[in-house]
Amino acid sequence: MESGRPDADHSREPKEMEPSGWGPTAWSHLSLLRCQSPLVQCITNFVSMDLVANTLLSAGASPAMIHSPHEIPDFTPNTSALCINVGTLSADWLPPMKMAANLISKSSKPWVLDPVAVGSSTFRLQACLELIKLKPTVIKGNGSEIIALSEASTGHAKGVDSAHESMDAVEAAKLLAQATGAIVAVSGAVDIITDGQRVVGVRNGVRMMQKITATGCAASALVAAFLAVDQSHALEATASAMSVFGVAGEMGMSMAKGPASLRMHLIDSLYGLDEGVVLGRTNISSLA
Amino acid sequence: MESGRPDADHSREPKEMEPSGWGPTAWSHLSLLRCQSPLVQCITNFVSMDLVANTLLSAGASPAMIHSPHEIPDFTPNTSALCINVGTLSADWLPPMKMAANLISKSSKPWVLDPVAVGSSTFRLQACLELIKLKPTVIKGNGSEIIALSEASTGHAKGVDSAHESMDAVEAAKLLAQATGAIVAVSGAVDIITDGQRVVGVRNGVRMMQKITATGCAASALVAAFLAVDQSHALEATASAMSVFGVAGEMGMSMAKGPASLRMHLIDSLYGLDEGVVLGRTNISSLA
Amino acid sequence: MESGRPDADHSREPKEMEPSGWGPTAWSHLSLLRCQSPLVQCITNFVSMDLVANTLLSAGASPAMIHSPHEIPDFTPNTSALCINVGTLSADWLPPMKMAANLISKSSKPWVLDPVAVGSSTFRLQACLELIKLKPTVIKGNGSEIIALSEASTGHAKGVDSAHESMDAVEAAKLLAQATGAIVAVSGAVDIITDGQRVVGVRNGVRMMQKITATGCAASALVAAFLAVDQSHALEATASAMSVFGVAGEMGMSMAKGPASLRMHLIDSLYGLDEGVVLGRTNISSLA
Repeated sequence: MESGRPDADHSREPKEMEPSGWGPTAWSHLSLLRCQSPLVQCITNFVSMDLVANTLLSAGASPAMIHSPHEIPDFTPNTSALCINVGTLSADWLPPMKMAANLISKSSKPWVLDPVAVGSSTFRLQACLELIKLKPTVIKGNGSEIIALSEASTGHAKGVDSAHESMDAVEAAKLLAQATGAIVAVSGAVDIITDGQRVVGVRNGVRMMQKITATGCAASALVAAFLAVDQSHALEATASAMSVFGVAGEMGMSMAKGPASLRMHLIDSLYGLDEGVVLGRTNISSLA
Repeated sequence: MESGRPDADHSREPKEMEPSGWGPTAWSHLSLLRCQSPLVQCITNFVSMDLVANTLLSAGASPAMIHSPHEIPDFTPNTSALCINVGTLSADWLPPMKMAANLISKSSKPWVLDPVAVGSSTFRLQACLELIKLKPTVIKGNGSEIIALSEASTGHAKGVDSAHESMDAVEAAKLLAQATGAIVAVSGAVDIITDGQRVVGVRNGVRMMQKITATGCAASALVAAFLAVDQSHALEATASAMSVFGVAGEMGMSMAKGPASLRMHLIDSLYGLDEGVVLGRTNISSLA
Repeated sequence: MESGRPDADHSREPKEMEPSGWGPTAWSHLSLLRCQSPLVQCITNFVSMDLVANTLLSAGASPAMIHSPHEIPDFTPNTSALCINVGTLSADWLPPMKMAANLISKSSKPWVLDPVAVGSSTFRLQACLELIKLKPTVIKGNGSEIIALSEASTGHAKGVDSAHESMDAVEAAKLLAQATGAIVAVSGAVDIITDGQRVVGVRNGVRMMQKITATGCAASALVAAFLAVDQSHALEATASAMSVFGVAGEMGMSMAKGPASLRMHLIDSLYGLDEGVVLGRTNISSLA
């Protein structure tokens, strides 16, 4: 998967990335995705299934929404990556989620956990903690979700007053990454991605994307697709996916008149992204 | 919630509303919704989840699709309103619907029942009758649905020949409202809203909205959101929500080339509605 | 249903269809659909429900997504056609699928099986084989799906190397049709429809439709709707439905900038198709 691709391992590079570093990496990941069209299994919430599938298709991946425990043993070993999203969790969906996570981990393939609204209930928090034990490659959530998970996983509680401050989310993300071995991604005005040591910030996307349901879920599935084509650089692949999705949102925003037309133009833009746009707009930098 | 808002209690006003009465009320409700962004739980059918969530987001509310009985006890007490929609009902979804309805009622917060296709089966009719016992704030359906529910609740059957005449729906709605204590809304060319005594008509929206799946479901969820910001005037909030959704449809129609572009422009328009448009287009009047 | 409609039974006609034969047939089917607005029950996957319902509405049918075994005995006998799609199959959905298929067959009304990803698991293959025993009017899938089903139903295995060659799919489709008595439709660059003897090819649609999730599911539901208005000519109705859907895609493509806008314009176009466009673009021909 590495042939003809610039080395994406920036871990030994200085803190200030040269402007040309991340753009080619993101473009390389997207190009690989379009070329390989990996099969990405999504066990996701009912609200997001349409947008998740269309996002993956537009990016070049092959989505598969299969959630039955009668099918997972046959199907999951043939997939290239898995995304598990607990947005409309119910008791009967948790065992197949765990079964699929176990199988993909045994196959040494990557998987993403999106702990949507993990603070909604004790049941959901426990479910996410059980899933984290199955070694997700990436955990991706918003600030509140990552802080809640980090506190529950590590016992380090933040004061309630500052629970949603982005700097607290960075610290929580680093602790969660260190405790779990996962890459942790925090979506926000600046997306944060960390492996527990390095911290990368992504400044792409537009605010109105928050007014479209399931954009976060779609981004998580896209992370799984990017991991499928560069599993050995999970931090870089995660940053690339979130940047590319954000760039598609920026391009879409230039044509949008509101959230529904933004959704359409975002998907169209993701399908049509070319090298010039990706190189020109990718805005990723090392924060630590 | 009432500060700075014109008194929306028109119950003591003469039958003929002055043109300026309802427009400011609808605008006030929408402004409050955008300001407060209430959390609205929807236990809705699979077909509608995407449009319902996007409608609520575009209007300014925060949607949450949570349906598991393992989560409802933790989650529902924190919501501002609830919408229950039986469109893809199955036996395992009924108990959590009833659980959530019970909890929201105990919290003295509003909830809406959308008895989609209540005449489809005995099971569905019985389920809706059980849900009605849990005191919905608003019951919203089309003429056939409200007539079927009214007959089953009150024993007053209409002749089959005239079952769908809109005047029969008005009488059925009044009887259902009187029997249940709920506001009853009947969607149609003229939407009817009644508390059993007063009857208000909403003349907004366009016919093509019926060619988009789940617009009725989306309107019901929007009623729940409007109730969240003015629970003490449930009839007015219901009329405002249905009018605002219809106005967004009218604005969208001016740009649409068919049902799918209407859906997009409707959501965009709902997001962008300003005071001038709402005041100029709100078409609500007392019918009795 | 036949009054005023040209005879669509081409079975006794020569192999070379005159150019004017299929266009009027397709237009006649679409006109009947818009006129009769048949109720079409869909037990379909979660990903496709929105697009399936909107496709049926735009074409003129009345969709109903009802899947509960508590409702099917009351509801299914009142429907005009049924579409069963196994895209997100789970063990609890199979019995109601079989129940509905049994009831619709007993009513002598048509039903369509879409064996999505039938090769994904042994469970799914067995489920589809059980459903096929309930005598679907039409089985519609892509080449891989039809080849997998045909081999499992007839025992005639193709070499793995050529498994996806379209000519193999034709042979597999004919064998499957002969073994089951169903019309078999294979979607592809050229759609193939066969009753086991006659083979018809449909050359409509655009490649980008494959980049929109659930377009195949939507086409299958549209086949069910077309069967509802001309059950006695199932092969012709199937070809008409696939051609009309493809024509809507072609019209949509002229306005599209990517998969998401294609989806919108396709549905808008389906709603607005007029006689001139259908006659001018229908591209169906006998292949054998």
